[in-house]
Amino acid sequence: MKKYRDIVGDGGSHILDQVGQQMDRLKARMDKIRHKVAIMSGKGGVGKSSITANLAILLSLQGHSVGVLDADINGPSLAKMMGARGQKLKTTEEGVQPALGFLNIPVMSMDLFLPTDETPVIWDAPTQQDSFTWRGSMEVTALREFLSDTDWGNLDFLLLDLPPGTDRLPNIVKLLPDLGGTLIVTIPSEVSQLVVKKSISVAKNILKTPVIGLVENMAGYVCSHCGTLGELFPSGNVKEWVQSLGIPFLGKIPFDSRISASADSGTPFLLEYPDSLTGQAFREIGKKVKEFFKVS
Amino acid sequence: MKKYRDIVGDGGSHILDQVGQQMDRLKARMDKIRHKVAIMSGKGGVGKSSITANLAILLSLQGHSVGVLDADINGPSLAKMMGARGQKLKTTEEGVQPALGFLNIPVMSMDLFLPTDETPVIWDAPTQQDSFTWRGSMEVTALREFLSDTDWGNLDFLLLDLPPGTDRLPNIVKLLPDLGGTLIVTIPSEVSQLVVKKSISVAKNILKTPVIGLVENMAGYVCSHCGTLGELFPSGNVKEWVQSLGIPFLGKIPFDSRISASADSGTPFLLEYPDSLTGQAFREIGKKVKEFFKVS
Repeated sequence: MKKYRDIVGDGGSHILDQVGQQMDRLKARMDKIRHKVAIMSGKGGVGKSSITANLAILLSLQGHSVGVLDADINGPSLAKMMGARGQKLKTTEEGVQPALGFLNIPVMSMDLFLPTDETPVIWDAPTQQDSFTWRGSMEVTALREFLSDTDWGNLDFLLLDLPPGTDRLPNIVKLLPDLGGTLIVTIPSEVSQLVVKKSISVAKNILKTPVIGLVENMAGYVCSHCGTLGELFPSGNVKEWVQSLGIPFLGKIPFDSRISASADSGTPFLLEYPDSLTGQAFREIGKKVKEFFKVS
Repeated sequence: MKKYRDIVGDGGSHILDQVGQQMDRLKARMDKIRHKVAIMSGKGGVGKSSITANLAILLSLQGHSVGVLDADINGPSLAKMMGARGQKLKTTEEGVQPALGFLNIPVMSMDLFLPTDETPVIWDAPTQQDSFTWRGSMEVTALREFLSDTDWGNLDFLLLDLPPGTDRLPNIVKLLPDLGGTLIVTIPSEVSQLVVKKSISVAKNILKTPVIGLVENMAGYVCSHCGTLGELFPSGNVKEWVQSLGIPFLGKIPFDSRISASADSGTPFLLEYPDSLTGQAFREIGKKVKEFFKVS
């Protein structure tokens, strides 16, 4: 396997120096953040971003300083969920100032850089016969910049909402050697579990990062007409299988259509409906995350 | 930008020859398939695989020969949904024989190649400073093999279930220059629409492939207790915004928890519940897909 330097020749050392300096800045920024938490699932659409946003709001309401980083470069939705869309980013001597979402929570997302809703992120190989694309590189580069050039300041928690898929995770997590823990999200369906199992393998065996536990999201639906808790996905015994893999089970979050409405309208669900079943479930999970980090 | 040949040197021509031969085989195979349809959304978890599986079953029940290709290398779930998991693949003189799902529909998926449920697909850069990964390449290589080395035989339809994300789509679609049309899937939430808009841009402006139309999935939930059609996601006017983008609106599919149960248990929903609201919705959409291809 050829190395980057072999390929880019003389120009390479300059780029390598730049990357090195950026990694130094990144380390200095990250040293000011106590706990870095990755939210992952492998599968898309299971509610990673929604859980990231609500966990951030919960921790902030409880007096912790918290920031959120949308590591999904392709389908960024966290800025919208945090009520931070459309803000112009400013750069000061301290670095890029993140957008501020609900409760002034700092938010960084590719969404803040795209000129229109319709703009996709595309990295195209220059010719059909080019046998590599710059894709992995571009994604990691963008995240390295979000981590190294953003003025996060001192934080108790930085929550990273990871993209779906397993193949890109190693390169993302390499940027954060002191990742404190990963929170894994699934929905009850066996199809989802099949994909999520692969993520657990990645977290445990490849990334070797501590796993905080698994959250079962969309666990049932409360009918807004009759109040019955109905089945949304067939409920395999998620708790049992995840515990058999040696992963703590953190709890179930029932589906509440008001969460999606809150995300769309830009008002935090946990502020509007703190005593809902779903709100209570979030608080239980938040408590377990804090216990994991021995934070009171 | 350096070209593949510049990097790999002498060894490169051999690999390029191999790729060239593979593309010739791919073309010969694809010439025997009348209509290639890509199912995409950009967003994960909106039901691409479920729609692919049920559309394949519907077309097959109506007498068309159809195959399905799971282009989601990271989170393959189509083999399970088609009841084809765990089959051993055989190779004959004609090529790799695909697994056979419900109604003997041929299925190809990375899932059939992974030794255990837990095995993730990972392409890791060799060192942290290596500024590119082989990821894009590996994914395209796997799909090129699925298309070129699988003995699909003569088919009326090949349905491709594309992975979430927009950045990889151009390289995937380059493999199929005669792609007949794309079917775009969203759920009603604004957050999903934000991501799906990017896919529509990719389909229309970058891939320049014909768009069959958009399907609104998970459009409401029928309570199994009281039968009321409740809201699952807040229903923005999907039909209106998609038509304003010049994309036909193909219809709404309400959420039916029995679909997920069917996918998990390996029995086709459309065979078990043909007259359900959701079954009727699938038939309406199937009809529009066939009208698009002028197939009776």
